Amino acid sequence: MKVLVINCGSSSLKYQLIDMSNEEVLAKGLAERIGIEGARVKHQPTGKEDVLIEKPMSDHKKAIEIVLNALVDSDHGAIHSMDEINAVGHRVVHGGEKFSESVVIDEKVLKAIEECSELAPLHNPPNIMGIKACQELMPNTPMVAVFDTAFHQTMPESSYIYPIPYEMYEKYGIRRYGFHGTSHKYVANRAADMLGKDIKDLKIVTCHLGNGASVAAVKNGKSIETSMGFTPLEGLAMGTRSGDIDPAIIVYLMEKENMTIDEVNTMLNKKSGVLGISGVSSDFRDIEGAASEGNHRSQLALEKFNMRVKKYIGAYSAIMKGIDVLVFTAGLGENSVETRQEICKGLEFIGIDIDEDNNKVRGKETELNKEESKVKILLIPTNEELMIARDTKSLV
Amino acid sequence: MKVLVINCGSSSLKYQLIDMSNEEVLAKGLAERIGIEGARVKHQPTGKEDVLIEKPMSDHKKAIEIVLNALVDSDHGAIHSMDEINAVGHRVVHGGEKFSESVVIDEKVLKAIEECSELAPLHNPPNIMGIKACQELMPNTPMVAVFDTAFHQTMPESSYIYPIPYEMYEKYGIRRYGFHGTSHKYVANRAADMLGKDIKDLKIVTCHLGNGASVAAVKNGKSIETSMGFTPLEGLAMGTRSGDIDPAIIVYLMEKENMTIDEVNTMLNKKSGVLGISGVSSDFRDIEGAASEGNHRSQLALEKFNMRVKKYIGAYSAIMKGIDVLVFTAGLGENSVETRQEICKGLEFIGIDIDEDNNKVRGKETELNKEESKVKILLIPTNEELMIARDTKSLV
Repeated sequence: MKVLVINCGSSSLKYQLIDMSNEEVLAKGLAERIGIEGARVKHQPTGKEDVLIEKPMSDHKKAIEIVLNALVDSDHGAIHSMDEINAVGHRVVHGGEKFSESVVIDEKVLKAIEECSELAPLHNPPNIMGIKACQELMPNTPMVAVFDTAFHQTMPESSYIYPIPYEMYEKYGIRRYGFHGTSHKYVANRAADMLGKDIKDLKIVTCHLGNGASVAAVKNGKSIETSMGFTPLEGLAMGTRSGDIDPAIIVYLMEKENMTIDEVNTMLNKKSGVLGISGVSSDFRDIEGAASEGNHRSQLALEKFNMRVKKYIGAYSAIMKGIDVLVFTAGLGENSVETRQEICKGLEFIGIDIDEDNNKVRGKETELNKEESKVKILLIPTNEELMIARDTKSLV
Repeated sequence: MKVLVINCGSSSLKYQLIDMSNEEVLAKGLAERIGIEGARVKHQPTGKEDVLIEKPMSDHKKAIEIVLNALVDSDHGAIHSMDEINAVGHRVVHGGEKFSESVVIDEKVLKAIEECSELAPLHNPPNIMGIKACQELMPNTPMVAVFDTAFHQTMPESSYIYPIPYEMYEKYGIRRYGFHGTSHKYVANRAADMLGKDIKDLKIVTCHLGNGASVAAVKNGKSIETSMGFTPLEGLAMGTRSGDIDPAIIVYLMEKENMTIDEVNTMLNKKSGVLGISGVSSDFRDIEGAASEGNHRSQLALEKFNMRVKKYIGAYSAIMKGIDVLVFTAGLGENSVETRQEICKGLEFIGIDIDEDNNKVRGKETELNKEESKVKILLIPTNEELMIARDTKSLV
């Protein structure tokens, strides 16, 4: 069985074709600048040369058409015919309270995803465009939706309710949803596998640390709390997002700076986080570089980032009555030796004891803790595409 | 030496006259409805009957005049002459970055406090009115300002900087200040005394849980982080304040509900917290009552409150590399057996082991932990007035 995994942004489309008999990636790629001048697809068939296809793409349908052609191309293709694609798995950002797991897409499901657009106006509409385009191009191929929010739907009410008037939850669905669910779920399950344990017996804190970053408390296999909330803005300090701030700051700035809602939104989502503190970059590599050259605000940005992760690990251990496993994943979590070291520093009192040598590793599954560490510390590269493909396979 | 302690709100004035030779309260009271019809002073001289003085009070000066008269009254007074008041200690909410400790008030100090009004427009102006009124009425009596923010001025930069554009800190002083500092300082020091230890050797988490509530991490005698931030809105769920929320909620509501800045402010400060969730009351006693009768949203409000405190204890232990002492203070912290029990539940993994019987106590200094508990758990009634009087005495 071969599954095509699709992840649509507003002007981009990531894809992977996975052979589920051995979970091997046959081809993957990225279409960029959809609907904009200079559109192109970077197509990477496994074992062959990468290809750059520069063609106008008026919309997502056109982009998918080009991707499908690339996949069956006699030179740089990965399959002989589109019929070999047995199912398509779509990443959908927001499933609201409607979806607590992946689901086969039908008319009713599509309508429900459209209703969730209200909660994710930037993310769900392109996801829907991708689904519709695939449906038109592959009308007989089953499609599955895999939601970023689904894994966190197991959170108890006390985790997801905000201390604001309850009517705001009833009227608008304002509550914690959490994101990166596919990644948190993947690495939590992978952690149990690596340790040869049943996930139902484990208290795991998963740290998805990339340009967007979140932490989740996974108890007995279920997410019971996560740092992103109603939107992906809450929680950790991120590349350009503020994460937690005193809500009164918004009110203050709107008055003092005469900022509009849009300007506040842009400031908190695009100009804050480690970029805001450092003034240098939203890319942690740049900031680490500047920090090592003595740039004070870059050092401060990294300290802030690490301290927040540390606090969430402490907080989530507290609500789980302890911690057995700590997982690092995503760009920074997989590749920054320094970040992992700093986050773990001082957490020995809850049994987190990282081994400096074991920690000198990038991007591959590794046990980072000292042998005597009560808590297992794992580096697990995330693989959301594989997770989507697995869910798709099991549902079709 | 006798010190008069003054705490001015916009239309109220709390006072205590303390004999510093034995730290005994000679009289205390509350003037209410200053500048409003129905103004009155409830005067409570120690060892005598309480008196209710109903008199028009156009401003704080008039209120203080009445209070001073009450203090020297031959019937219900506490002293013979105003000359016996050797110094006045004023509670001032916001000292900004200018004041890291209490200070004798002179022209320059008063001007600096006025400059901090920008950051606390609701609180500093009445504090200043109180100072000026006292200066006019007691021109030869030294005055001291004791700041709610001062104790937290020891926070490291990584605690007080928000992940928003750094210019907002430079331009407007937007940073974490923290509040309840006088209380956190008092109970932290008292904890060290009770345990016969040097505070410099202790890692203490102080929980000031009242209608306004905050947690502080006090390491080696210094506040290194606290849950209230730029304003007293951030942090725990409180009686009517939201504490931490996804900042994007504000933006969403302003758009959806067409809310103005003022309306958002009012919602988050006056209609949120446990009142917002429960819909029942902002008073924890009412909510506990409703919860025990099976009211679901009241149970949820209490769960949310307790869970947040628990998370902060975990987070602050993490940044202090452990915890030696946990302190409960203020209305709820001193009086709610249930709240303390629930907060401690499940924290045994960091050495917090509360004794159910020891915990059955209200409002008096008590060690609540089991004998074998690694962490000492203390109930310590706060006494901000005494702290203000002590600082005043030591400075004058």
